[in-house]
Amino acid sequence: MNVEFINPFITALLNVVGMMGHTELTNEKPRIKNNEVSMGDVSGLIGMVGSETKGSLSITFEKSLALRIMQRMLGEKLKEIDEDVIDMVGEITNMVSGGAKKELSKKGFEFDMATPMIVSGTNHTIDHIHEGHVIIIPFGSDSGKAFIEICFE
Amino acid sequence: MNVEFINPFITALLNVVGMMGHTELTNEKPRIKNNEVSMGDVSGLIGMVGSETKGSLSITFEKSLALRIMQRMLGEKLKEIDEDVIDMVGEITNMVSGGAKKELSKKGFEFDMATPMIVSGTNHTIDHIHEGHVIIIPFGSDSGKAFIEICFE
Repeated sequence: MNVEFINPFITALLNVVGMMGHTELTNEKPRIKNNEVSMGDVSGLIGMVGSETKGSLSITFEKSLALRIMQRMLGEKLKEIDEDVIDMVGEITNMVSGGAKKELSKKGFEFDMATPMIVSGTNHTIDHIHEGHVIIIPFGSDSGKAFIEICFE
Repeated sequence: MNVEFINPFITALLNVVGMMGHTELTNEKPRIKNNEVSMGDVSGLIGMVGSETKGSLSITFEKSLALRIMQRMLGEKLKEIDEDVIDMVGEITNMVSGGAKKELSKKGFEFDMATPMIVSGTNHTIDHIHEGHVIIIPFGSDSGKAFIEICFE
């Protein structure tokens, strides 16, 4: 999987969280996930299907970061991940995959997206079942970490 | 969403867990998920995309049930969800969605599947972001509960 394919997802997350959540994320370089565990508390997952490919995308947030984005969006200070936070992560997942899809379409990569699913649960992990590699991109911020994981067969 | 669409997923899970895992599941009637929480410890998630529809499927197991199926398959008694259990849940997810796809294809419903993702984490929950309804099917067994959740737009 080449970097041309990965970058639109990174750019989309930086933009969405920056604009919607008024929170600056900084990303590490994409790398192959290899015995690495990316743990988080709320994740958006979306399946992708193209005519010659299929894949999966997950965006995982630590609770502290998800709650801070909520607070900056709505001015409301939450202590726990509730339905509003879940909806927000769903919206972020949709916007990131939609934004990346649009960019990739310009480069001739076409795929459709399934409906997103949101996982909530302290310290959960996600495994992408696939043939090939999973690419992981860690993000830092003033309020906690996030991870994108992406695989395409 | 009509029952004709749901039944192949139920039949596939009963068959796969019965044949691979030597464990009899009994299902409740499918119902619309409505303020209901289906909590589990390991889940297989898969996105589905058709030409006129898209959706998502999750199969969630309580830890006790997942470990019992592993034990009955491999004769190995595990205490925690490890990579082997994750692979097994990935395989079950693939087989259930593949089996249902085959049956539904005969009835004229066509869809493609994304790659599965497996979530591990004590007491996690899954929200399907969708327009319309999520159908939930609870399953019981001698070793714990399982849930299918399915939504199609």
